[in-house]
Amino acid sequence: METSVLKFGGTSVGNFDKIRSIAGELHSRVSQGEKLIVVVSAMGGTTDELLQNAGQLSSAPKEDHVALLLTTGEQQTISYLSIVLEDLGVRTKAMTGYQAGIKTFGGHMKSKIADIDEERLKVTLEDYDVIVIAGFQGINDDFEITTLGRGGSDTTAVAIAARCSMPCEIYTDVDGVYTIDPRVYSTASRIHEITYDEMMEMSALGAGVLETRCIEIAKNHSIPIYLGRTLSEERGTWIMQDTQILERKAVTGAALDSDIIHVTLYEPKKESTLIFDLFKRFETHDINIDMISQVVNSEGFQLSFTVKGNDSYRLDDIFETVGRMHPEMMLDARTTRSKVSIIGSGMRDMTGVASKAFMALEGAGIKFYQTTTSEISISYVVDSKDDKQAIEVLATAFEL
Amino acid sequence: METSVLKFGGTSVGNFDKIRSIAGELHSRVSQGEKLIVVVSAMGGTTDELLQNAGQLSSAPKEDHVALLLTTGEQQTISYLSIVLEDLGVRTKAMTGYQAGIKTFGGHMKSKIADIDEERLKVTLEDYDVIVIAGFQGINDDFEITTLGRGGSDTTAVAIAARCSMPCEIYTDVDGVYTIDPRVYSTASRIHEITYDEMMEMSALGAGVLETRCIEIAKNHSIPIYLGRTLSEERGTWIMQDTQILERKAVTGAALDSDIIHVTLYEPKKESTLIFDLFKRFETHDINIDMISQVVNSEGFQLSFTVKGNDSYRLDDIFETVGRMHPEMMLDARTTRSKVSIIGSGMRDMTGVASKAFMALEGAGIKFYQTTTSEISISYVVDSKDDKQAIEVLATAFEL
Repeated sequence: METSVLKFGGTSVGNFDKIRSIAGELHSRVSQGEKLIVVVSAMGGTTDELLQNAGQLSSAPKEDHVALLLTTGEQQTISYLSIVLEDLGVRTKAMTGYQAGIKTFGGHMKSKIADIDEERLKVTLEDYDVIVIAGFQGINDDFEITTLGRGGSDTTAVAIAARCSMPCEIYTDVDGVYTIDPRVYSTASRIHEITYDEMMEMSALGAGVLETRCIEIAKNHSIPIYLGRTLSEERGTWIMQDTQILERKAVTGAALDSDIIHVTLYEPKKESTLIFDLFKRFETHDINIDMISQVVNSEGFQLSFTVKGNDSYRLDDIFETVGRMHPEMMLDARTTRSKVSIIGSGMRDMTGVASKAFMALEGAGIKFYQTTTSEISISYVVDSKDDKQAIEVLATAFEL
Repeated sequence: METSVLKFGGTSVGNFDKIRSIAGELHSRVSQGEKLIVVVSAMGGTTDELLQNAGQLSSAPKEDHVALLLTTGEQQTISYLSIVLEDLGVRTKAMTGYQAGIKTFGGHMKSKIADIDEERLKVTLEDYDVIVIAGFQGINDDFEITTLGRGGSDTTAVAIAARCSMPCEIYTDVDGVYTIDPRVYSTASRIHEITYDEMMEMSALGAGVLETRCIEIAKNHSIPIYLGRTLSEERGTWIMQDTQILERKAVTGAALDSDIIHVTLYEPKKESTLIFDLFKRFETHDINIDMISQVVNSEGFQLSFTVKGNDSYRLDDIFETVGRMHPEMMLDARTTRSKVSIIGSGMRDMTGVASKAFMALEGAGIKFYQTTTSEISISYVVDSKDDKQAIEVLATAFEL
C-alpha cells in the first residue's frame, strides 16, 4: 500500500471552497488505492487573528497560554477537512498534535519535535484511508500544548514522513523551486530535482521556500520531499539525495538577499581583542553573522561580515560599546549592499565555477566587495543598485 | 486553604470586557487567600457558529469530527481568561478537558464523565492560584476528544467539585432559583436554600436552571452548589443537603410546563395488551412519558399520561400503528393543556399539602384533568388557558 505524507499550508485551506477542493483531490488519490497522512495549517488569517486577540488582552501574554490559543486554529482545520472527506466516503481520522503523539521540547512557541507515535499512526492507517493531523503543534513533557514556531507545519509533515519512512509532499502557493526568484526574473526556470544540500544553501541564502530544519530532517532520514503548488498540474520540485539525481549542472540556482548590512572594521593593531569583544556581544544578542572574512597584515587588522537587515537597531548599540573599547577602530557599515549567491552541488566535482563567475561579473563591470565560498556555493557582496544585473549575468553564464 | 470550583457560562464570557471583569473578580478572591478552579464555556455564540460551519460542509457531519471542532471554543476561552489573569499577576494554569484528565464514555457528543485526574489538579494548585479548565469536553478510552452534551460545562464543574470535595459555584445570567418562574410572575421570590431533591424535581418539572445530572452528582457527593448571577451582589441559591437547611416551608416552589401533550386512551376491554404495545414503541423511539395514571373498571381500560410537546410528530406515527392493532381504542391527545406542579421536601413530614392544593384550585374554579404525586411534588394537568392562574392560586395558598 503506497502511503505518503501531504502538507497543505494556510492559504491552501484558506476557505471552505479550497478545503472542498483539497478533499476532492485526496478522495481521488484514495480511490486509486493510496493511503494518506495529511498535515494542515490553520486557515489563512486565523493565526494572526488569534494573536491579535491575545495582544488585546495583554501587552505581554504568556507563551504557554498563547500556544494553547493558537493550536485551536489547526484543530478547526482538521475538523473541517475531516467532515468533508467523510462526506465523500473517505474513512478519515482527525488528530491533534498530541493525539498523534507529537512530543516536543524547548520553549512553548518554538518547540522542536522530540518524538512521534509512529505505531499509533500505522495502526490507525489499517482502519482509515486518511489521517488528518494538525500541524505546528505538539505536547511537552509537562503535558503542556506547544507550537513549533516558524515553518512549524512543514516540520510536522517532514518529521512524520521521516519517522514513518514515507515521501513527503508539501503544497503551497508557489509551484516549486526556481533557479532564480521568479517574482523578480522572468527568465527563471523551475528546478525539478535538487539535492538536500543545494536546497539548504538556497534556503539559507534567501530563497526561503522551506525552513532549513525541514531539509535537515529529510536529509538525515533520506526522505524525498516534493514542493509544488496546491492542486496544480504543473510539475514541482523534488528534493532528494545526490545519488538519485542522474544528471546535473555545476550551478543549480542563484539567490539574492538584498536585506543585509555589510560591515567592515579596521583596527591599526596586529594583535587585537576586537573579534572576541564583538562576537561575545553578537552571541548575547542572538545576532547571526555571515560571510566572515578576516585579514591581518603589517598595517593592522581587518574584518568583514554581513548581518541581516533587521538586526540594524541592536547592531548600533553593539558598535557603540565596542567602539569605546577600541578607540582606534574604523567602522564601515552599509545597508546599500546586497548578497548574490550561486549554488550547486556540482561545484564539488567541477572546476572553473569560481573563475567563470568572477569573469562574468568583471566582464559586466559589476564591482564586488567581498567573496566567500562554501563547498557548494559562492557568495558575493555587491552594490544593491547592481544586484539584479549581477543575478542576470550569473544566470546567463551558468544557463539557469 | 479554601478552594472552590467556579463555573462561568457562555454569556458570562461573551466578550473580552466580560472576561476582564471576571478575571478582576477572581483576582480579588485570590488576593484574599483563596485558590480557585474555574470552569468556562465557549464564548457566547461560538459553539453555534462552529456548528453552522460544520453544517455548511456536510448535511450529516460525523460526531467525532464535530466534537473535535466544538472543543476549540472552550480552549480559546481558557487561553483568553488565563492571559488576562496572568497579566493581573495571578499564577494561572490553563487546562483542556484532556489535560485535566477528564475521561469520558458514551457517544462523542453526549459523553458522560468516567474519571477526573484529581491528583493532577491538587498538585497543580500547589504552584498556581487558579486553574482554568475547559468545560464540556473530555477524552475517551480511544484517545478521541468528546463533548458532554447539554449542560456539559455545569457537569464538568460539579464533577470536579465532587471529585475534589470542594463547593461549586455556578454563575450564569439568572440570579438564582425562584419559587415560580420570575419571567412570568413578578411576585416570585428567590429561594436562598433548597435541597438536592427539591431542585431535581424543580428541574425535571420545567424550572430548568441546572441539568438533573449535575444535581445528582452533587447529591451523591454531598457537594453544596451555589447558583447565582455573574458578578452580582445579589444573594443567589445554595443547593444543599436536607439536614443543612434549618427551617423550611412545606412547599418550596412551583413549576409550569406548558409544552406538553396530554393523552388519554380508552379501550372497552378489561384485559388488553395496549400498554405493552404502546410502551414498547415509546421505548424504541426514545419517547419519555410522564404522569402515568391507569384505571381498569367494569367498562374497560383507561390510561392517561403526558409527553413532551416536541415528540408530537413521532407520537402520531405510534398512535396510527397501535390504533390498527386496537381498533376499538379511543384516543384523546391534547396540546391545549399544561402541567402545573408544586415542589417541597417538607411535604414528606407535613400533612394537608395535597388537600390544601386541591381546595385552592377548586376554589378558583380551575378544572384539572389528572393529578400525580411523588414524595416531594404534586402535579396537575389543567387547561393551558388556566395555567398561569393556577400557578398564582398555588403560590398564594403556599406563600411562595
